[in-house]
Amino acid sequence: MNRIESVKNPLIKKVKRLHKRKYREKEQLFIVEGFHLVEEALKHNARVKEIFLEDEAELPGGFDFSYVHLTLVSHQVMKEMSMTETPQGILAVCEHKDDDSVSIQLQKEDSFLFVDGVQDPGNLGTMIRTADAAGMTAVILGEGTVDPYNDKVIRATQGSLFHIPLIKGDLEDWIKRCKESGIPVFGSALEEGTTHSAIASQEGFALIVGNEGAGVNSEWLERCDQIIYVPIYGEAESLNVSVATGILLYHLKASL
Amino acid sequence: MNRIESVKNPLIKKVKRLHKRKYREKEQLFIVEGFHLVEEALKHNARVKEIFLEDEAELPGGFDFSYVHLTLVSHQVMKEMSMTETPQGILAVCEHKDDDSVSIQLQKEDSFLFVDGVQDPGNLGTMIRTADAAGMTAVILGEGTVDPYNDKVIRATQGSLFHIPLIKGDLEDWIKRCKESGIPVFGSALEEGTTHSAIASQEGFALIVGNEGAGVNSEWLERCDQIIYVPIYGEAESLNVSVATGILLYHLKASL
Repeated sequence: MNRIESVKNPLIKKVKRLHKRKYREKEQLFIVEGFHLVEEALKHNARVKEIFLEDEAELPGGFDFSYVHLTLVSHQVMKEMSMTETPQGILAVCEHKDDDSVSIQLQKEDSFLFVDGVQDPGNLGTMIRTADAAGMTAVILGEGTVDPYNDKVIRATQGSLFHIPLIKGDLEDWIKRCKESGIPVFGSALEEGTTHSAIASQEGFALIVGNEGAGVNSEWLERCDQIIYVPIYGEAESLNVSVATGILLYHLKASL
Repeated sequence: MNRIESVKNPLIKKVKRLHKRKYREKEQLFIVEGFHLVEEALKHNARVKEIFLEDEAELPGGFDFSYVHLTLVSHQVMKEMSMTETPQGILAVCEHKDDDSVSIQLQKEDSFLFVDGVQDPGNLGTMIRTADAAGMTAVILGEGTVDPYNDKVIRATQGSLFHIPLIKGDLEDWIKRCKESGIPVFGSALEEGTTHSAIASQEGFALIVGNEGAGVNSEWLERCDQIIYVPIYGEAESLNVSVATGILLYHLKASL
């Protein structure tokens, strides 16, 4: 195995460029850090291209690494590539998922989370983790949503990024497709519409959740079958969007 | 109004010491940053002792500042005191809430969130915000839980810190008090017990949620009336603890 000690090595510089969204999109690559996440990537057949290991670090066991380019690096080099303050000694470079190109044939029992412009990476990552836990069919990322390959998103997904299709899409188009397939579309708002607990659980559904400040675009809300909200009983102005998403998804799924 | 330009000013140094939990506890003080949070503190009668303002910054309107020590500071001094990278120009020093000393007379319609060793400040803050939104009576912070006066907790509460009593307490004692008052105590676990959706909504209740890794201490689980969990339908190993808390609190409260 090759060993790199210089932070000026061109391969290391190339990885470091992936800290920026622009390069992640140009190269269609992203960074996955830490033993657990790299193991999840391998387990779920993410297209792992490179793995960098610190000298003392271990590779996850039970995988075929013949298609992966493995490189040993010094601690200094790992720190240079890492986006965390205390790198865990293993870092992988993966190709973007190709979920965008999958043309899903919608079934009326499918369930989708539509994300409209969520900006906080921790929120988006937690929402992907929750959508996975709730057994959703896919997460659709509308325009203006933070890059799902941002390191903080990936960390917050705890691996769910590799479990569930993530599709960058036009929400208008997706709302239309759902309606054509008999899938009811629920829009979430702060206090308009119907209290969530008054809605029965659904066989299939799509739920649109929106930006932390602005909420769901009113154009999409107008196209929804129903607008729902989680009531506030206390003095908080609102719920965190990933908590509200969890409450709504699990309520709509409840009796499955 | 006094104006401080030197980061070596003893008052500034004293504020900076409050970045550490040790000093926050010794002095029984904490820092609140930004216009919205300082306004929430004033609105909800938090004991605001000092307010520091950058030259161009505004004070929230409509409050009596005669009991507050106001100081103008340079941008450099504000940066020194602030725990954020881009300070918002206003920072307050408040006394700890005295909720600990309040002896709440439990009623059977009261509802409590018991927090057992949650470590992530963002999670605790979001849980306090959710408990406020759900109209809980109080949040009880068991041993090993992150300091609620940590800056990241405060930010994540979005002001709910000032809306709902936060009590550092012995969970064993609180479980006992609930039982004596006819308040059912639910413990949350990863996959033991009863699916949450099989539990009816409750007039009053206490819910115990636990540490991100270890969950709720088994000693407390044994004392619960019922153990409940949020089912995982997909491939995620678990839900984020603040999301699970939201799902459970709103389910138990649902039909109120």
